[in-house]
Amino acid sequence: MSGLEAVRRAAVRLFAERGFAATGIRDIARAAGLNSATLYHYVGSKEDLLTGMLRESQEDLLRAGREAFAGSADPAVQLARMVRAHVATEAVNPLTSRVSDHEVHSLTGPGRAVIVGLRDDYESLFHKALARGARTGQFLITDLPVARYALIEMCNGVADWYRPDGRLSVAELQDRFSELACRMVGGRLVRRAECDPPVAITRLSWEPLTPAGPEQASA
Amino acid sequence: MSGLEAVRRAAVRLFAERGFAATGIRDIARAAGLNSATLYHYVGSKEDLLTGMLRESQEDLLRAGREAFAGSADPAVQLARMVRAHVATEAVNPLTSRVSDHEVHSLTGPGRAVIVGLRDDYESLFHKALARGARTGQFLITDLPVARYALIEMCNGVADWYRPDGRLSVAELQDRFSELACRMVGGRLVRRAECDPPVAITRLSWEPLTPAGPEQASA
Repeated sequence: MSGLEAVRRAAVRLFAERGFAATGIRDIARAAGLNSATLYHYVGSKEDLLTGMLRESQEDLLRAGREAFAGSADPAVQLARMVRAHVATEAVNPLTSRVSDHEVHSLTGPGRAVIVGLRDDYESLFHKALARGARTGQFLITDLPVARYALIEMCNGVADWYRPDGRLSVAELQDRFSELACRMVGGRLVRRAECDPPVAITRLSWEPLTPAGPEQASA
Repeated sequence: MSGLEAVRRAAVRLFAERGFAATGIRDIARAAGLNSATLYHYVGSKEDLLTGMLRESQEDLLRAGREAFAGSADPAVQLARMVRAHVATEAVNPLTSRVSDHEVHSLTGPGRAVIVGLRDDYESLFHKALARGARTGQFLITDLPVARYALIEMCNGVADWYRPDGRLSVAELQDRFSELACRMVGGRLVRRAECDPPVAITRLSWEPLTPAGPEQASA
Protein backbone atom coordinates (compact mmCIF):
# COMPACT_ATOMS: atom_id res chain seq x y z
CA MET A 1 0.00 0.00 0.00
CA SER A 2 1.43 3.38 -1.00
CA GLY A 3 1.56 6.35 1.36
CA LEU A 4 -1.19 7.99 -0.66
CA GLU A 5 -3.44 4.95 -0.32
CA ALA A 6 -2.77 4.83 3.42
CA VAL A 7 -3.82 8.48 3.76
CA ARG A 8 -6.94 7.99 1.69
CA ARG A 9 -8.10 4.93 3.58
CA ALA A 10 -7.43 6.49 6.96
CA ALA A 11 -9.39 9.58 5.93
CA VAL A 12 -12.40 7.62 4.67
CA ARG A 13 -12.51 5.53 7.82
CA LEU A 14 -12.35 8.57 10.11
CA PHE A 15 -14.87 10.59 8.08
CA ALA A 16 -17.27 7.62 8.06
CA GLU A 17 -16.92 6.94 11.78
CA ARG A 18 -16.69 10.44 13.28
CA GLY A 19 -17.82 12.69 10.47
CA PHE A 20 -15.75 15.17 8.45
CA ALA A 21 -16.15 18.09 10.86
CA ALA A 22 -14.99 16.09 13.87
CA THR A 23 -11.86 14.75 12.16
CA GLY A 24 -8.65 16.75 12.33
CA ILE A 25 -5.87 16.63 9.75
CA ARG A 26 -3.60 15.36 12.57
CA ASP A 27 -5.94 12.45 13.27
CA ILE A 28 -5.61 11.42 9.63
CA ALA A 29 -1.83 11.79 9.68
CA ARG A 30 -1.56 9.72 12.86
CA ALA A 31 -3.83 6.97 11.50
CA ALA A 32 -1.79 6.85 8.28
CA GLY A 33 1.55 6.81 10.14
CA LEU A 34 2.75 10.13 8.70
CA ASN A 35 3.45 13.57 10.09
CA SER A 36 1.15 16.45 9.17
CA ALA A 37 3.66 18.14 6.83
CA THR A 38 4.16 14.95 4.81
CA LEU A 39 0.40 14.44 4.69
CA TYR A 40 -0.09 17.97 3.39
CA HIS A 41 2.43 17.21 0.64
CA TYR A 42 0.39 14.16 -0.40
CA VAL A 43 -3.12 15.54 -0.30
CA GLY A 44 -3.31 19.21 0.67
CA SER A 45 -6.00 20.33 3.11
CA LYS A 46 -8.73 18.29 4.76
CA GLU A 47 -11.28 19.83 2.38
CA ASP A 48 -9.09 18.91 -0.61
CA LEU A 49 -9.12 15.36 0.68
CA LEU A 50 -12.92 15.26 1.02
CA THR A 51 -13.37 16.87 -2.40
CA GLY A 52 -11.10 14.28 -4.02
CA MET A 53 -12.87 11.44 -2.23
CA LEU A 54 -16.39 12.54 -3.15
CA ARG A 55 -15.31 13.32 -6.68
CA GLU A 56 -13.82 9.90 -7.31
CA SER A 57 -16.77 8.19 -5.61
CA GLN A 58 -19.40 10.14 -7.59
CA GLU A 59 -17.47 9.77 -10.85
CA ASP A 60 -17.28 6.04 -10.31
CA LEU A 61 -21.01 5.80 -9.55
CA LEU A 62 -21.78 7.88 -12.64
CA ARG A 63 -19.48 5.71 -14.78
CA ALA A 64 -21.23 2.57 -13.51
CA GLY A 65 -24.66 4.17 -14.00
CA ARG A 66 -23.86 5.20 -17.58
CA GLU A 67 -22.56 1.74 -18.39
CA ALA A 68 -25.72 0.22 -16.87
CA PHE A 69 -27.99 2.59 -18.79
CA ALA A 70 -26.18 2.05 -22.09
CA GLY A 71 -26.43 -1.73 -21.82
CA SER A 72 -30.02 -1.89 -23.03
CA ALA A 73 -32.70 0.12 -24.81
CA ASP A 74 -35.44 -1.40 -22.61
CA PRO A 75 -36.26 0.93 -19.66
CA ALA A 76 -37.01 -2.05 -17.38
CA VAL A 77 -33.57 -3.53 -18.05
CA GLN A 78 -31.96 -0.07 -17.75
CA LEU A 79 -33.55 0.41 -14.33
CA ALA A 80 -32.62 -3.09 -13.15
CA ARG A 81 -29.03 -2.65 -14.37
CA MET A 82 -28.68 0.76 -12.69
CA VAL A 83 -30.07 -0.51 -9.39
CA ARG A 84 -27.78 -3.55 -9.55
CA ALA A 85 -24.76 -1.32 -10.20
CA HIS A 86 -25.71 1.09 -7.40
CA VAL A 87 -26.19 -1.50 -4.65
CA ALA A 88 -23.03 -3.37 -5.68
CA THR A 89 -21.04 -0.11 -5.54
CA GLU A 90 -22.38 0.54 -2.02
CA ALA A 91 -21.69 -3.05 -0.95
CA VAL A 92 -18.11 -3.02 -2.24
CA ASN A 93 -17.32 0.51 -1.01
CA PRO A 94 -19.42 0.90 2.13
CA LEU A 95 -17.36 3.49 3.99
CA THR A 96 -16.67 5.68 0.96
CA SER A 97 -20.37 5.44 0.03
CA ARG A 98 -21.44 6.51 3.49
CA VAL A 99 -19.18 9.55 3.36
CA SER A 100 -20.50 10.32 -0.13
CA ASP A 101 -24.10 9.99 1.02
CA HIS A 102 -23.69 12.19 4.11
CA GLU A 103 -20.90 14.74 3.68
CA VAL A 104 -21.64 16.72 0.52
CA HIS A 105 -22.92 19.54 2.75
CA SER A 106 -19.49 19.75 4.42
CA LEU A 107 -17.92 21.06 1.21
CA THR A 108 -17.79 24.83 1.08
CA GLY A 109 -15.37 25.51 -1.76
CA PRO A 110 -15.78 25.35 -5.55
CA GLY A 111 -15.52 21.55 -5.38
CA ARG A 112 -19.06 21.40 -4.08
CA ALA A 113 -20.65 22.47 -7.36
CA VAL A 114 -18.67 19.78 -9.17
CA ILE A 115 -19.93 17.06 -6.81
CA VAL A 116 -23.53 18.28 -6.97
CA GLY A 117 -23.26 18.35 -10.76
CA LEU A 118 -22.03 14.75 -10.86
CA ARG A 119 -24.89 13.69 -8.57
CA ASP A 120 -27.40 15.51 -10.77
CA ASP A 121 -26.02 13.76 -13.85
CA TYR A 122 -26.37 10.44 -12.08
CA GLU A 123 -29.96 11.12 -11.00
CA SER A 124 -30.84 12.17 -14.53
CA LEU A 125 -30.03 8.63 -15.74
CA PHE A 126 -32.72 7.29 -13.40
CA HIS A 127 -35.04 10.06 -14.57
CA LYS A 128 -34.52 9.08 -18.21
CA ALA A 129 -35.21 5.39 -17.67
CA LEU A 130 -38.27 6.10 -15.51
CA ALA A 131 -39.67 8.71 -17.91
CA ARG A 132 -39.23 6.45 -20.91
CA GLY A 133 -40.84 3.46 -19.15
CA ALA A 134 -43.76 5.65 -18.07
CA ARG A 135 -44.19 6.90 -21.65
CA THR A 136 -44.18 3.41 -23.15
CA GLY A 137 -46.60 2.12 -20.49
CA GLN A 138 -44.04 -0.33 -19.12
CA PHE A 139 -43.98 1.50 -15.77
CA LEU A 140 -46.82 2.89 -13.65
CA ILE A 141 -45.46 6.07 -12.10
CA THR A 142 -47.64 8.69 -10.41
CA ASP A 143 -44.82 11.03 -9.43
CA LEU A 144 -41.50 10.66 -11.16
CA PRO A 145 -39.28 12.77 -8.86
CA VAL A 146 -40.61 11.01 -5.74
CA ALA A 147 -40.11 7.57 -7.32
CA ARG A 148 -36.55 8.56 -8.26
CA TYR A 149 -35.74 9.79 -4.73
CA ALA A 150 -37.23 6.67 -3.15
CA LEU A 151 -35.29 4.34 -5.47
CA ILE A 152 -31.97 6.07 -4.90
CA GLU A 153 -32.50 6.34 -1.14
CA MET A 154 -33.29 2.67 -0.71
CA CYS A 155 -30.08 1.83 -2.63
CA ASN A 156 -28.02 4.30 -0.56
CA GLY A 157 -29.13 2.52 2.60
CA VAL A 158 -27.16 -0.58 1.60
CA ALA A 159 -23.85 0.94 2.75
CA ASP A 160 -25.29 1.11 6.27
CA TRP A 161 -26.40 -2.48 6.73
CA TYR A 162 -24.93 -4.86 4.14
CA ARG A 163 -22.10 -7.12 5.30
CA PRO A 164 -20.06 -9.16 2.84
CA ASP A 165 -19.84 -11.98 5.39
CA GLY A 166 -23.62 -12.05 5.91
CA ARG A 167 -26.15 -14.39 4.32
CA LEU A 168 -26.38 -12.62 0.93
CA SER A 169 -23.73 -12.49 -1.80
CA VAL A 170 -23.47 -9.25 -3.75
CA ALA A 171 -25.22 -10.93 -6.71
CA GLU A 172 -28.11 -12.01 -4.46
CA LEU A 173 -28.31 -8.51 -3.01
CA GLN A 174 -28.55 -7.21 -6.57
CA ASP A 175 -31.34 -9.69 -7.38
CA ARG A 176 -33.36 -8.60 -4.34
CA PHE A 177 -33.05 -4.90 -5.08
CA SER A 178 -33.72 -5.33 -8.77
CA GLU A 179 -36.97 -7.10 -7.92
CA LEU A 180 -38.04 -4.45 -5.39
CA ALA A 181 -37.24 -1.62 -7.82
CA CYS A 182 -39.10 -3.23 -10.74
CA ARG A 183 -42.14 -3.86 -8.58
CA MET A 184 -42.03 -0.37 -7.11
CA VAL A 185 -42.57 1.23 -10.50
CA GLY A 186 -45.09 -1.38 -11.65
CA GLY A 187 -42.65 -2.87 -14.16
CA ARG A 188 -42.00 -6.45 -15.20
CA LEU A 189 -39.38 -8.40 -13.24
CA VAL A 190 -36.01 -8.40 -14.97
CA ARG A 191 -33.94 -11.57 -14.50
CA ARG A 192 -30.23 -11.52 -13.70
CA ALA A 193 -29.36 -13.05 -17.07
CA GLU A 194 -31.06 -10.15 -18.88
CA CYS A 195 -28.54 -7.82 -17.26
CA ASP A 196 -25.51 -9.63 -18.69
CA PRO A 197 -22.81 -8.66 -19.04
CA PRO A 198 -22.98 -7.02 -15.60
CA VAL A 199 -21.45 -3.61 -14.97
CA ALA A 200 -17.94 -3.97 -13.55
CA ILE A 201 -17.81 -2.71 -9.96
CA THR A 202 -14.46 -1.51 -8.66
CA ARG A 203 -13.18 -1.17 -5.16
CA LEU A 204 -12.04 2.45 -4.94
CA SER A 205 -8.46 3.16 -3.92
CA TRP A 206 -10.03 5.11 -1.04
CA GLU A 207 -11.98 2.22 0.47
CA PRO A 208 -10.49 0.69 3.64
CA LEU A 209 -9.99 -3.04 3.24
CA THR A 210 -11.72 -4.28 6.37
CA PRO A 211 -15.27 -3.51 7.42
CA ALA A 212 -15.54 -1.32 10.49
CA GLY A 213 -18.13 0.22 12.70
CA PRO A 214 -20.22 -1.57 15.32
CA GLU A 215 -23.31 0.10 13.91
CA GLN A 216 -23.32 -2.17 10.85
CA ALA A 217 -25.99 -4.83 11.09
CA SER A 218 -26.30 -8.05 9.17
CA ALA A 219 -29.19 -8.46 6.75
CA MET B 1 -40.26 29.32 24.06
CA SER B 2 -38.79 28.06 27.35
CA GLY B 3 -35.05 27.89 28.04
CA LEU B 4 -35.24 24.12 27.74
CA GLU B 5 -36.89 24.33 24.33
CA ALA B 6 -34.27 26.84 23.18
CA VAL B 7 -31.49 24.46 24.19
CA ARG B 8 -33.12 21.47 22.53
CA ARG B 9 -33.74 23.26 19.27
CA ALA B 10 -30.25 24.73 19.15
CA ALA B 11 -28.78 21.28 19.78
CA VAL B 12 -30.83 19.57 17.06
CA ARG B 13 -29.91 22.24 14.54
CA LEU B 14 -26.20 22.02 15.32
CA PHE B 15 -26.16 18.21 15.39
CA ALA B 16 -28.02 18.09 12.07
CA GLU B 17 -25.78 20.66 10.40
CA ARG B 18 -22.32 19.82 11.77
CA GLY B 19 -22.79 16.41 13.34
CA PHE B 20 -22.71 15.49 17.03
CA ALA B 21 -18.94 14.99 17.27
CA ALA B 22 -18.17 18.40 15.78
CA THR B 23 -20.54 20.29 18.07
CA GLY B 24 -19.28 21.55 21.43
CA ILE B 25 -21.43 22.12 24.49
CA ARG B 26 -20.37 25.79 24.28
CA ASP B 27 -21.68 26.05 20.73
CA ILE B 28 -25.07 24.87 21.97
CA ALA B 29 -25.04 27.27 24.91
CA ARG B 30 -24.12 30.18 22.66
CA ALA B 31 -26.83 29.33 20.11
CA ALA B 32 -29.41 29.06 22.92
CA GLY B 33 -28.29 32.33 24.54
CA LEU B 34 -27.17 30.68 27.80
CA ASN B 35 -23.87 30.14 29.56
CA SER B 36 -22.44 26.63 29.78
CA ALA B 37 -23.18 26.22 33.50
CA THR B 38 -26.85 27.11 33.03
CA LEU B 39 -27.04 24.76 30.07
CA TYR B 40 -25.56 21.94 32.14
CA HIS B 41 -28.27 22.59 34.74
CA TYR B 42 -30.95 22.21 32.06
CA VAL B 43 -29.73 19.18 30.20
CA GLY B 44 -26.51 17.66 31.58
CA SER B 45 -23.79 16.61 29.18
CA LYS B 46 -23.79 16.68 25.39
CA GLU B 47 -24.31 12.91 25.36
CA ASP B 48 -27.29 13.25 27.75
CA LEU B 49 -28.73 15.73 25.29
CA LEU B 50 -28.29 13.40 22.30
CA THR B 51 -29.67 10.45 24.27
CA GLY B 52 -32.78 12.45 25.25
CA MET B 53 -33.26 13.65 21.68
CA LEU B 54 -32.96 10.22 20.07
CA ARG B 55 -35.10 8.66 22.78
CA GLU B 56 -37.98 11.09 22.31
CA SER B 57 -37.68 10.86 18.53
CA GLN B 58 -37.64 7.04 18.47
CA GLU B 59 -40.40 6.79 21.07
CA ASP B 60 -42.55 9.11 18.99
CA LEU B 61 -41.91 7.11 15.81
CA LEU B 62 -42.71 3.88 17.67
CA ARG B 63 -45.90 5.42 19.10
CA ALA B 64 -46.97 6.48 15.61
CA GLY B 65 -46.02 3.08 14.16
CA ARG B 66 -48.00 1.22 16.81
CA GLU B 67 -51.03 3.43 16.27
CA ALA B 68 -50.72 2.85 12.50
CA PHE B 69 -50.38 -0.91 12.90
CA ALA B 70 -53.29 -1.16 15.34
CA GLY B 71 -55.63 0.73 13.03
CA SER B 72 -56.38 -2.27 10.82
CA ALA B 73 -56.13 -6.05 10.69
CA ASP B 74 -55.37 -5.95 6.94
CA PRO B 75 -51.58 -6.13 6.33
CA ALA B 76 -51.87 -3.91 3.23
CA VAL B 77 -53.59 -1.19 5.25
CA GLN B 78 -51.15 -1.69 8.13
CA LEU B 79 -48.20 -1.18 5.78
CA ALA B 80 -49.78 1.84 4.10
CA ARG B 81 -50.61 3.40 7.49
CA MET B 82 -47.08 2.81 8.83
CA VAL B 83 -45.44 4.26 5.74
CA ARG B 84 -47.77 7.27 5.87
CA ALA B 85 -46.93 7.84 9.56
CA HIS B 86 -43.19 7.46 8.95
CA VAL B 87 -42.91 9.92 6.06
CA ALA B 88 -45.13 12.45 7.81
CA THR B 89 -42.97 12.22 10.94
CA GLU B 90 -39.86 12.86 8.83
CA ALA B 91 -41.55 15.72 6.96
CA VAL B 92 -42.73 17.44 10.15
CA ASN B 93 -39.49 16.83 12.10
CA PRO B 94 -36.77 16.88 9.42
CA LEU B 95 -33.80 17.96 11.53
CA THR B 96 -34.58 15.69 14.48
CA SER B 97 -35.18 12.83 12.04
CA ARG B 98 -31.84 13.40 10.35
CA VAL B 99 -30.03 13.31 13.68
CA SER B 100 -31.97 10.17 14.61
CA ASP B 101 -31.10 8.53 11.31
CA HIS B 102 -27.38 9.32 11.46
CA GLU B 103 -26.16 9.70 15.05
CA VAL B 104 -27.09 6.49 16.91
CA HIS B 105 -23.46 5.38 16.52
CA SER B 106 -22.32 8.47 18.43
CA LEU B 107 -23.90 7.17 21.65
CA THR B 108 -21.42 5.27 23.82
CA GLY B 109 -23.24 5.06 27.16
CA PRO B 110 -26.09 2.84 28.36
CA GLY B 111 -28.55 5.04 26.46
CA ARG B 112 -27.46 3.40 23.23
CA ALA B 113 -29.04 0.03 24.03
CA VAL B 114 -32.31 1.79 24.81
CA ILE B 115 -32.35 3.57 21.45
CA VAL B 116 -31.39 0.44 19.53
CA GLY B 117 -34.15 -1.44 21.38
CA LEU B 118 -36.73 1.17 20.38
CA ARG B 119 -35.58 1.00 16.78
CA ASP B 120 -35.78 -2.80 16.82
CA ASP B 121 -39.33 -2.62 18.21
CA TYR B 122 -40.25 -0.22 15.43
CA GLU B 123 -38.75 -2.42 12.71
CA SER B 124 -40.57 -5.44 14.11
CA LEU B 125 -43.90 -3.74 13.34
CA PHE B 126 -42.91 -3.64 9.67
CA HIS B 127 -41.74 -7.23 9.94
CA LYS B 128 -45.11 -8.33 11.33
CA ALA B 129 -47.18 -6.63 8.63
CA LEU B 130 -44.89 -7.91 5.84
CA ALA B 131 -44.78 -11.47 7.24
CA ARG B 132 -48.54 -11.61 7.62
CA GLY B 133 -49.16 -10.25 4.11
CA ALA B 134 -46.70 -12.77 2.68
CA ARG B 135 -48.45 -15.60 4.54
CA THR B 136 -51.91 -14.63 3.32
CA GLY B 137 -50.66 -14.20 -0.25
CA GLN B 138 -51.49 -10.48 -0.27
CA PHE B 139 -47.81 -9.58 -0.67
CA LEU B 140 -45.12 -11.07 -2.91
CA ILE B 141 -41.91 -10.95 -0.88
CA THR B 142 -38.76 -12.85 -1.81
CA ASP B 143 -36.65 -11.61 1.09
CA LEU B 144 -38.39 -10.10 4.07
CA PRO B 145 -35.42 -8.43 5.84
CA VAL B 146 -34.25 -6.78 2.62
CA ALA B 147 -37.76 -5.54 1.82
CA ARG B 148 -38.03 -4.12 5.34
CA TYR B 149 -34.66 -2.34 5.10
CA ALA B 150 -35.51 -0.91 1.68
CA LEU B 151 -38.93 0.35 2.84
CA ILE B 152 -37.57 2.03 5.95
CA GLU B 153 -34.59 3.53 4.13
CA MET B 154 -36.71 5.08 1.41
CA CYS B 155 -38.90 6.66 4.12
CA ASN B 156 -35.85 7.91 6.07
CA GLY B 157 -34.67 9.74 2.98
CA VAL B 158 -37.64 12.12 3.19
CA ALA B 159 -36.00 14.20 5.94
CA ASP B 160 -33.20 15.01 3.48
CA TRP B 161 -35.20 16.32 0.56
CA TYR B 162 -38.81 17.15 1.46
CA ARG B 163 -39.70 20.81 1.84
CA PRO B 164 -43.04 21.92 3.30
CA ASP B 165 -43.08 24.87 0.87
CA GLY B 166 -42.49 22.62 -2.16
CA ARG B 167 -45.06 21.26 -4.59
CA LEU B 168 -46.32 18.40 -2.37
CA SER B 169 -48.42 18.68 0.79
CA VAL B 170 -47.67 16.17 3.54
CA ALA B 171 -50.87 14.25 2.61
CA GLU B 172 -49.74 14.04 -1.03
CA LEU B 173 -46.29 12.90 0.06
CA GLN B 174 -48.01 10.19 2.10
CA ASP B 175 -50.10 9.14 -0.92
CA ARG B 176 -46.99 8.83 -3.11
CA PHE B 177 -45.05 6.76 -0.61
CA SER B 178 -47.99 4.57 0.25
CA GLU B 179 -48.36 3.73 -3.44
CA LEU B 180 -44.63 2.99 -3.88
CA ALA B 181 -44.55 0.80 -0.77
CA CYS B 182 -47.65 -1.20 -1.75
CA ARG B 183 -46.29 -1.79 -5.24
CA MET B 184 -42.85 -2.70 -3.92
CA VAL B 185 -44.22 -5.70 -2.03
CA GLY B 186 -46.66 -6.68 -4.77
CA GLY B 187 -49.67 -5.58 -2.71
CA ARG B 188 -52.90 -3.89 -3.71
CA LEU B 189 -52.97 -0.09 -3.67
CA VAL B 190 -54.46 1.28 -0.46
CA ARG B 191 -56.41 4.52 -0.83
CA ARG B 192 -56.02 7.44 1.59
CA ALA B 193 -59.61 7.01 2.83
CA GLU B 194 -58.85 3.43 3.90
CA CYS B 195 -56.27 4.82 6.31
CA ASP B 196 -58.75 7.03 8.16
CA PRO B 197 -58.53 8.18 10.82
CA PRO B 198 -54.88 9.05 10.11
CA VAL B 199 -52.23 8.71 12.77
CA ALA B 200 -51.67 12.03 14.55
CA ILE B 201 -48.19 13.38 13.79
CA THR B 202 -46.67 15.75 16.33
CA ARG B 203 -43.93 18.29 15.99
CA LEU B 204 -41.41 17.33 18.65
CA SER B 205 -40.41 19.93 21.24
CA TRP B 206 -36.87 19.43 19.90
CA GLU B 207 -37.59 20.37 16.29
CA PRO B 208 -36.39 23.85 15.23
CA LEU B 209 -39.22 25.89 13.78
CA THR B 210 -37.69 27.00 10.51
CA PRO B 211 -36.17 24.77 7.87
CA ALA B 212 -32.43 25.10 7.56
CA GLY B 213 -29.59 23.73 5.55
CA PRO B 214 -28.73 24.65 1.97
CA GLU B 215 -28.44 20.95 1.15
CA GLN B 216 -32.22 20.51 1.23
CA ALA B 217 -33.66 20.21 -2.24
CA SER B 218 -37.23 20.67 -3.35
CA ALA B 219 -39.10 17.61 -4.61
